[in-house]
Amino acid sequence: MLRTEQSTQQLFIEVRQRTQEICVPLKVEDYGMQPSLEVSPPKWHLAHTSWFFEEFILARSAGYKRFDDDFAYLFNSYYDGIGDRIPRPDRGLMYRPTVEEIYAYRAYVDRHMSNLLEDEFTEEMKSLLHLGLNHEQQHQELLLADIKYIYGNQPLYPSYGKLNHSMDSSANKNWLSIREGVYDIGYEGNSFSYDNEHNKHKVYLQSYEISDGLVSNAEYAEFIQNGGYEDFNLWHAEGWDWIKENNVKSPMYWHWNDRSWWSYELDGFKPINLQTAVMHISFYEAVAYANWKGLRLPTEFEWEVAADQFDWGDRWEWTNSAYLPYPGYRKSAGAIGEYNGKFMVNQMVLRGGSVATSRGHSRMTYRNFFHPHLRWQFTGLRLARDKK
Amino acid sequence: MLRTEQSTQQLFIEVRQRTQEICVPLKVEDYGMQPSLEVSPPKWHLAHTSWFFEEFILARSAGYKRFDDDFAYLFNSYYDGIGDRIPRPDRGLMYRPTVEEIYAYRAYVDRHMSNLLEDEFTEEMKSLLHLGLNHEQQHQELLLADIKYIYGNQPLYPSYGKLNHSMDSSANKNWLSIREGVYDIGYEGNSFSYDNEHNKHKVYLQSYEISDGLVSNAEYAEFIQNGGYEDFNLWHAEGWDWIKENNVKSPMYWHWNDRSWWSYELDGFKPINLQTAVMHISFYEAVAYANWKGLRLPTEFEWEVAADQFDWGDRWEWTNSAYLPYPGYRKSAGAIGEYNGKFMVNQMVLRGGSVATSRGHSRMTYRNFFHPHLRWQFTGLRLARDKK
Amino acid sequence: MLRTEQSTQQLFIEVRQRTQEICVPLKVEDYGMQPSLEVSPPKWHLAHTSWFFEEFILARSAGYKRFDDDFAYLFNSYYDGIGDRIPRPDRGLMYRPTVEEIYAYRAYVDRHMSNLLEDEFTEEMKSLLHLGLNHEQQHQELLLADIKYIYGNQPLYPSYGKLNHSMDSSANKNWLSIREGVYDIGYEGNSFSYDNEHNKHKVYLQSYEISDGLVSNAEYAEFIQNGGYEDFNLWHAEGWDWIKENNVKSPMYWHWNDRSWWSYELDGFKPINLQTAVMHISFYEAVAYANWKGLRLPTEFEWEVAADQFDWGDRWEWTNSAYLPYPGYRKSAGAIGEYNGKFMVNQMVLRGGSVATSRGHSRMTYRNFFHPHLRWQFTGLRLARDKK
Amino acid sequence: MLRTEQSTQQLFIEVRQRTQEICVPLKVEDYGMQPSLEVSPPKWHLAHTSWFFEEFILARSAGYKRFDDDFAYLFNSYYDGIGDRIPRPDRGLMYRPTVEEIYAYRAYVDRHMSNLLEDEFTEEMKSLLHLGLNHEQQHQELLLADIKYIYGNQPLYPSYGKLNHSMDSSANKNWLSIREGVYDIGYEGNSFSYDNEHNKHKVYLQSYEISDGLVSNAEYAEFIQNGGYEDFNLWHAEGWDWIKENNVKSPMYWHWNDRSWWSYELDGFKPINLQTAVMHISFYEAVAYANWKGLRLPTEFEWEVAADQFDWGDRWEWTNSAYLPYPGYRKSAGAIGEYNGKFMVNQMVLRGGSVATSRGHSRMTYRNFFHPHLRWQFTGLRLARDKK
Repeated sequence: MLRTEQSTQQLFIEVRQRTQEICVPLKVEDYGMQPSLEVSPPKWHLAHTSWFFEEFILARSAGYKRFDDDFAYLFNSYYDGIGDRIPRPDRGLMYRPTVEEIYAYRAYVDRHMSNLLEDEFTEEMKSLLHLGLNHEQQHQELLLADIKYIYGNQPLYPSYGKLNHSMDSSANKNWLSIREGVYDIGYEGNSFSYDNEHNKHKVYLQSYEISDGLVSNAEYAEFIQNGGYEDFNLWHAEGWDWIKENNVKSPMYWHWNDRSWWSYELDGFKPINLQTAVMHISFYEAVAYANWKGLRLPTEFEWEVAADQFDWGDRWEWTNSAYLPYPGYRKSAGAIGEYNGKFMVNQMVLRGGSVATSRGHSRMTYRNFFHPHLRWQFTGLRLARDKK
Repeated sequence: MLRTEQSTQQLFIEVRQRTQEICVPLKVEDYGMQPSLEVSPPKWHLAHTSWFFEEFILARSAGYKRFDDDFAYLFNSYYDGIGDRIPRPDRGLMYRPTVEEIYAYRAYVDRHMSNLLEDEFTEEMKSLLHLGLNHEQQHQELLLADIKYIYGNQPLYPSYGKLNHSMDSSANKNWLSIREGVYDIGYEGNSFSYDNEHNKHKVYLQSYEISDGLVSNAEYAEFIQNGGYEDFNLWHAEGWDWIKENNVKSPMYWHWNDRSWWSYELDGFKPINLQTAVMHISFYEAVAYANWKGLRLPTEFEWEVAADQFDWGDRWEWTNSAYLPYPGYRKSAGAIGEYNGKFMVNQMVLRGGSVATSRGHSRMTYRNFFHPHLRWQFTGLRLARDKK
Repeated sequence: MLRTEQSTQQLFIEVRQRTQEICVPLKVEDYGMQPSLEVSPPKWHLAHTSWFFEEFILARSAGYKRFDDDFAYLFNSYYDGIGDRIPRPDRGLMYRPTVEEIYAYRAYVDRHMSNLLEDEFTEEMKSLLHLGLNHEQQHQELLLADIKYIYGNQPLYPSYGKLNHSMDSSANKNWLSIREGVYDIGYEGNSFSYDNEHNKHKVYLQSYEISDGLVSNAEYAEFIQNGGYEDFNLWHAEGWDWIKENNVKSPMYWHWNDRSWWSYELDGFKPINLQTAVMHISFYEAVAYANWKGLRLPTEFEWEVAADQFDWGDRWEWTNSAYLPYPGYRKSAGAIGEYNGKFMVNQMVLRGGSVATSRGHSRMTYRNFFHPHLRWQFTGLRLARDKK
Repeated sequence: MLRTEQSTQQLFIEVRQRTQEICVPLKVEDYGMQPSLEVSPPKWHLAHTSWFFEEFILARSAGYKRFDDDFAYLFNSYYDGIGDRIPRPDRGLMYRPTVEEIYAYRAYVDRHMSNLLEDEFTEEMKSLLHLGLNHEQQHQELLLADIKYIYGNQPLYPSYGKLNHSMDSSANKNWLSIREGVYDIGYEGNSFSYDNEHNKHKVYLQSYEISDGLVSNAEYAEFIQNGGYEDFNLWHAEGWDWIKENNVKSPMYWHWNDRSWWSYELDGFKPINLQTAVMHISFYEAVAYANWKGLRLPTEFEWEVAADQFDWGDRWEWTNSAYLPYPGYRKSAGAIGEYNGKFMVNQMVLRGGSVATSRGHSRMTYRNFFHPHLRWQFTGLRLARDKK
């Protein structure tokens, strides 16, 4: 939730600057890398978030002249309503515009947005502005995940710098008990929220228990040690195929190094911190771990109902809920309507937030979503069980 | 639901014979075909359903000698708990054993099963027998779908013979109205049911309306005519990619032939019957159609709650529910536990039954499931909407 | 060379019958198999060789009515001049026409050809007839190679029956010495020959020596034993990539079985016969073996010049000559011109003949050709070296 | 041929500087691009040519300390004898070392080489030095071809600058007539030459005629205009498949733009110069053009024998000779032996040189070679015919 005490102007500047701060440690060479399909080059994020404001706000305001007409093609992510776009796998070939030109593009957009913000600003524009800022915050986290992938898959393991501190997940965890009944789910209020959090509606939950802490690296290492990746019984059929085809035997970034687990973190290659919550696991791995414990993942509803009773925000937590529309869901008109709705198939919901999530961006009703095999995000898991 | 007035013995014989009756029109050459990954050769179905009884019942009974030790490898479908198996894409290369040998295998298994059924039969065996019979009925429908695929993708369009008659879906359809509240979902009773129908549990539904009839071929043709396959706004992002990559412009088996739609049906290539329900569409197409009408698919829960108020059984109806476990779901111990649970990701639920479903096999709580892009099954759709 | 003492009529019958004799041991299920791209189903060979006579002779004779108009599409191999054809990888999906129909097709073509042969027969027809018979003989060898592939890649290893006996290659081999000078290469004469054997022309050869025997299984096993497949220095770069990607560690059909080499032969799975010539090796393997011995393959010219001084006909012998046109080469007009010329790139020449070659089919000027990685043919090698 | 009047020291400096001069117009972002498998990033060329001197000369001299031990892995191209190397498709992911570090690496190698050159220098070192310089000159041309590919496949078509001027190929061309007989082929002398130009040996040629000029853009445009890309009769079977699969309808970089042909040249996107020789065609296209004219390509021997009678050096000219060893060919010992020999399969010989070839690098006996489908090099063609 973006803080309301700020002026919109201040907020805009702060969010836009944060994106550039994230890129300070990068070298020119790093900005164009796309070592995997799901990763976008940092320069693409820088430009695409600016394109969003240009396309949806500036281009609709009188007298605005685009910075460069080609950019609509280059930096459209997935909006079919806007026109053609560069195919995702080719983003890494965008050596032009240069990094310098992209920063000039950002400055140009910022200047025109600031001018516009000083003038009268319609309610629709305001709504789009807040969407644009939340959109940019999402890309801030993607930027960090992508930089980690770029650095962490390079033999020289460059250090980027330290991320926020993770909580301790190693202490005794307690079961929170929730009683059977009808509960409210979804967002209702006056702050910003995504369309996929609506409508607020009733859900019936059976009695359940949910852990007040995340699964730690130490606990996950025990799962590996006990043959978790070799027992098909613990896995979805597609998960089993996935670990076999990709030779997956541990979370992403883990390496067995001289008799212990090390991992690449944004500040370098080092021994695993056993106390913190396991990170960079797929949905398949989260489920296999839960099965191994004789437990299960919570649904996104179980998570939301209990979330005010535990700390969250360290990891995006896989739930056992597929990403589907809430009752009464309506997508917005026009290209903005492509933001969420068209992805509501074959993805799983994650709840919470992570050490890489921008301050104030998440909330208890927030629904993140990814395909079940992806794990370059800062993902983890929390356990649940039926009430005995 | 298998009829209970029969003796188990009679039931066993009847189900086993039905499988072979389905194959009567086939030539030896047809039994080994696998023209697409999701299709299995008819001979494989014949053997695999026999293997199921051999593996899970006969092999555990005293003194049984397997028909051929290699068959466990050849005809295991997906049970990792049983050992190695032939990769699915290679099923079409199984020119040995011959068709004759496979019929001998069936006879051998039938004879030994009959002997066993005359002796004392444990409760566990009985439960496995009923699972085996329901399993074989599922394969009876798969056989018909696969034969249709094999014949319908061959330039000479051989005729197999006529399937059950479809109902008329062209008449005026009415909206059934269901009130908001808590409803019971899932199976409870003493007849056969799959583990995925359990536990029976409460679900809260918002008010909704559901059509008492299926979408007809005439209605679907109108969708095509109106550019439904060209408007990305109607489609999931993955659905849009899927129709573009596969050049999909109509349901499977439809061909534009001299100014009108024709289709391959099991009894030959002929003009579309506009009155009957549309068939062989993917989940993506079902959703795009609903979006085009400004409506939606029902969830599986909405379907189940209303199902006693409309006729069903003509098409497997796509719902907008992902295939996930019910609260309290427990998979069985051992290899049988692989039957359903390990597929509970990335698939969508279909409800109802079809013209190809074996008599007595389906029921209101039955949960069929397929990946959203598949459409060689006898799939269709029913519309729903929020209560105004 | 087809024997000239026969009447054309007798010859036609003999060749056509030989093709069917080859198929006697097959079961209906075997006729449709295509377990690898380079393999064609036996039923396809049976039909395609008949199609050749139908297309190039019968269809041009007055009053002939085709057996089935669809067959031109189904059984054209690679003649773009004739029209569309079924893509090679889909040949294995041709479960219709049935085997029975294909034999009827053969009988129909044979009957009409016999009638035609009794009438006056033009010189052009005669020339096409001889081409058709040689074409069918080529397919007789392909049939045997494909049957071996089909049976030899099936876990049950069915036995087909015994092939011609291979010579003993284990005895002391001698070096034949050829002096530097100008030699004649290519065919000149009145019997049948392919266009790629023309024009007869002069070639200058440096002094060289060539072995009078083929490399034996025992010798090749020694190469394996000495790490031949692990030393990149012995291999072409593309050969090295090929063995690594395909995990090649021995000739095709060889299996290390309980401390010794076994292989699948057409009469079953059995211990390697160490005395006979190595078989089913790629060009890459032939070259690597020669490099390991500090020797080399002969060129096709060196082979031809010396061929009257050694026995040949047991294996198709890889040469170090690329398949290229001879000086003055002219391809025939029309679709027949596609027989050879359009393949003259990226393939290597093989000389000699094999235990599977039809009697009288090969000759000293005969140029066989395959891509360097292929080895399902009956291939082997003979060594050469520069004169010291 | 490197000029002999220079001191080795001067020569070394000149060649090394030339490589860097080629890169002057590049921006940091351009150095890391690999838009196609056959293209290497400019920074890779800069480092790899330095690695060659480090690996084969400096590392064998007393007391040398490598610039960075990881570079052997990063910048080895294809020398299996040296150890592991980075897979070719991943060269584009080498964002580290940075461009700055790579220039530092070059300076480091240059400094140590200069010191070494001032000291006593063995004959073997001298021989490796000349190989290294010729190697670097080859990479200078590859650099230009790769830069052209990088810029010419980017929607913004950046301009790099002007290449050497091409000759006029539009004037009347004459047939040079060569008489049948024995000719000498290959290099003999004291200047630098590659191992693949040896041994000098005799070849017998039939009478032939060869054009004294290259095929021009105007002539090639006429071939396109006359349906050359639509007539399968003109093409190798593999060439036909290649143009169909890749939708090839003109030389690389040609675009049909407002009723005329334009192309990307290194100095920008502009109308085709009809007078100069056609460029960037595959072997398949060269052959199809010749077939269309009822003519053929010369063999590499025909080319070499006549080369002193025509101007050459504008285009690498495809010949109809496969890249094979000359009689008596011996590859060098050790890793240097991998330079040429292991590529002698599936490639075609090109003769001459191009506008991008470094001054003094080529000669009449020089054998360039590429796979027949590649065309990002500066390739063209010259016609030949049999003597009537």
